[in-house]
Amino acid sequence: MNEIERIIAKHAGVDSVKPGEIVEVEVDLVMTNDGTTALNIDIFENQLGCDKVWDNEKLIMIMDHYIPSNTIAAANSHKIMREFGVKNNLKYVYDGVGVCHQLMLEKHVEPGQLIIGADSHTCSYGSVGALSTGMGSTDIAVSWMDGRTWLKVPETIKIILDGEIPKGVYAKDMILKIIADMTAKGATYKAVLFEGTAVEAMSISERTTLCNMVIEAGGKFAYIKPDDKVREYMAAQGREVDFDDEECTDGEYEQIINYDVSEIEPQIACPHTVDNVCDLSEVEGMEIDEFFIGACTNGRYEDLEVAAAILKGKTIAPNVRLIVTPASREIYKKAAREGLLEIFMDAGAMISNPSCGTCFGSEGLLGDGERLLSTANRNFIGRVGSKDGFIYLASPAVVAASAITGKISDPREVL
Amino acid sequence: MNEIERIIAKHAGVDSVKPGEIVEVEVDLVMTNDGTTALNIDIFENQLGCDKVWDNEKLIMIMDHYIPSNTIAAANSHKIMREFGVKNNLKYVYDGVGVCHQLMLEKHVEPGQLIIGADSHTCSYGSVGALSTGMGSTDIAVSWMDGRTWLKVPETIKIILDGEIPKGVYAKDMILKIIADMTAKGATYKAVLFEGTAVEAMSISERTTLCNMVIEAGGKFAYIKPDDKVREYMAAQGREVDFDDEECTDGEYEQIINYDVSEIEPQIACPHTVDNVCDLSEVEGMEIDEFFIGACTNGRYEDLEVAAAILKGKTIAPNVRLIVTPASREIYKKAAREGLLEIFMDAGAMISNPSCGTCFGSEGLLGDGERLLSTANRNFIGRVGSKDGFIYLASPAVVAASAITGKISDPREVL
Repeated sequence: MNEIERIIAKHAGVDSVKPGEIVEVEVDLVMTNDGTTALNIDIFENQLGCDKVWDNEKLIMIMDHYIPSNTIAAANSHKIMREFGVKNNLKYVYDGVGVCHQLMLEKHVEPGQLIIGADSHTCSYGSVGALSTGMGSTDIAVSWMDGRTWLKVPETIKIILDGEIPKGVYAKDMILKIIADMTAKGATYKAVLFEGTAVEAMSISERTTLCNMVIEAGGKFAYIKPDDKVREYMAAQGREVDFDDEECTDGEYEQIINYDVSEIEPQIACPHTVDNVCDLSEVEGMEIDEFFIGACTNGRYEDLEVAAAILKGKTIAPNVRLIVTPASREIYKKAAREGLLEIFMDAGAMISNPSCGTCFGSEGLLGDGERLLSTANRNFIGRVGSKDGFIYLASPAVVAASAITGKISDPREVL
Repeated sequence: MNEIERIIAKHAGVDSVKPGEIVEVEVDLVMTNDGTTALNIDIFENQLGCDKVWDNEKLIMIMDHYIPSNTIAAANSHKIMREFGVKNNLKYVYDGVGVCHQLMLEKHVEPGQLIIGADSHTCSYGSVGALSTGMGSTDIAVSWMDGRTWLKVPETIKIILDGEIPKGVYAKDMILKIIADMTAKGATYKAVLFEGTAVEAMSISERTTLCNMVIEAGGKFAYIKPDDKVREYMAAQGREVDFDDEECTDGEYEQIINYDVSEIEPQIACPHTVDNVCDLSEVEGMEIDEFFIGACTNGRYEDLEVAAAILKGKTIAPNVRLIVTPASREIYKKAAREGLLEIFMDAGAMISNPSCGTCFGSEGLLGDGERLLSTANRNFIGRVGSKDGFIYLASPAVVAASAITGKISDPREVL
């Protein structure tokens, strides 16, 4: 078994599993956010006829999509969540504290866990060696009954990223390149395991960017074998975790794909699909109306640091806007303390409370015909305002460098 | 003539004016915001058939109500503003930099000026000795043609605030008390001049709170004779202003009202009118769902300082939310530098980019049946989300103290 299959087997309570098998598993945590929790609650109480959730410390509810509430419907949905939280004595109900996946990583996820969430990008937690995946509302509601769910053991694709990471190139560029090569369907219901010297060199933040976007190729799970960087990450949060460093030598993979990252250039995903990717040079100079730095993909402190280094002492182009949304309260506070927020504001940025914000289009909506260059993970039509708008995806470095010129620009020229 | 009449006469180019007279005046500045600018532009270009504004440095456009854009309509309206700004080569177009009235005070308003704005609370600038008032879209659009408008010289009500300001009592409490006494119609088309030892003791921030809400009694202008505090305020912004300190001894007033502020207690404006005011003690203990500190009324650094002193080391009650929205980028940056933002976040607050935010209901919307305790200036039905919501108005101290308990609470007990 490979590492992913081992985690599944452990949670299925069996010695071994094989790709294609359907297993019933015990999950460690179930995460829901305000995108769908009110619906989950309705299914749980009214369709399943349940009263209490199985474990008040393992069901984690996070209000992050509509923060602060931007519609009456959102406010009413938040109210339902809060009331359900009180009724079930839930220990963890987060309200405006950050994007769900970032909060999960900062406070809850541990290596080796199996986690499900009512959000596509739940696959992010592979960055610290957990298996995690998004599920639909009914599956999530059912899991609240007894902490169990079922899944098909996926085939695993191993992606080896070797080589030195070039200046101005980031995990975002690599995962965009990978999605372009695999296509949006290329990893459907498969697990993606990343390894290689470039991955070893990455921070947990960068690894999270990699894992976060595996769903954009259809992936069920993303996974990176945890190492000392994970130990340090957890220790910095005051958490101690226990896991095995031993190499898994008997793993089988459906496919092994090799990349030399030293050959990768800054990438741009063009409208309206995530796999519509090109080298930045192909769209360099394209005029942009709005810039967004944030989301579970690229709203971490490391991302803000990269952007701040580029924006320091500069101002954004006239008549464009730049929105910066730290992915969590901890990130926001550190960015305030370290002067990053001031750098952004001096450059002309707006700074939002930690939330999904402009990624999901609860703020920073596009007008008709406008173009957004975003660090988020999806560029689907109408996701951020007008259906006549256009969303381009890139790394924080690309977004910061481009905000200064008002056009898609190469960060390598200003780094 | 009293001080207000003198300013009007000067701008009318005549030696004297009398209440009731209709005069044509030259205005120093015209301010518009994204509440109505797109409409102003439509009138200016399509109904008046005009092409260029009279002065590209005197027409100031501010995007503050829908920031970051919360609807496609808002984004399109912003687009119209930006395009008009470029076409007219406007020097001052602010996008997400703060609430219009705060930006005007920080950057543009000078004592003795006559300013009109497309917003009710334009009367705020009386705090630095300017005459300013809100006008409708057509009047504003016409003023763009030649910088002139007409107005009826108002009667003036003088309100004298003497006595020592009690701990825990602020300008907000005084103006709520005054509005309660005058009623919402009590100063209709009248000017309100504030003086007295309590006013002299107030910061410009507190004076602005007083002037800001004069419109809630129907007032045309609010005015406080400028003094050394105004000189210091301007100097701190790198601006030098010239005005006369001489007492105006021949002024006539329609009415003179005296208050001993030492007798004023914390006040609450209850739903759904601003003059529905009571002593805090009458509604103490009422449960509140959402708390808001911000707006042109009370989103200044001094307001945040008061709130932070109360919230430091404390956390807000479970299942309530607190939204803090600094009124301008300068205030936000200072609050970040001085650690106030961190105090708010540690207490559990959400912090928004400078904007009107929850005052105008572009975020922090109420669900059905929810109650908001807000530092803003209006509690009209449906202004912040659900028409089945309830808005209470109070000082930042009251809001901060109440956020901790989740109920309307007296700040004097925790100060």
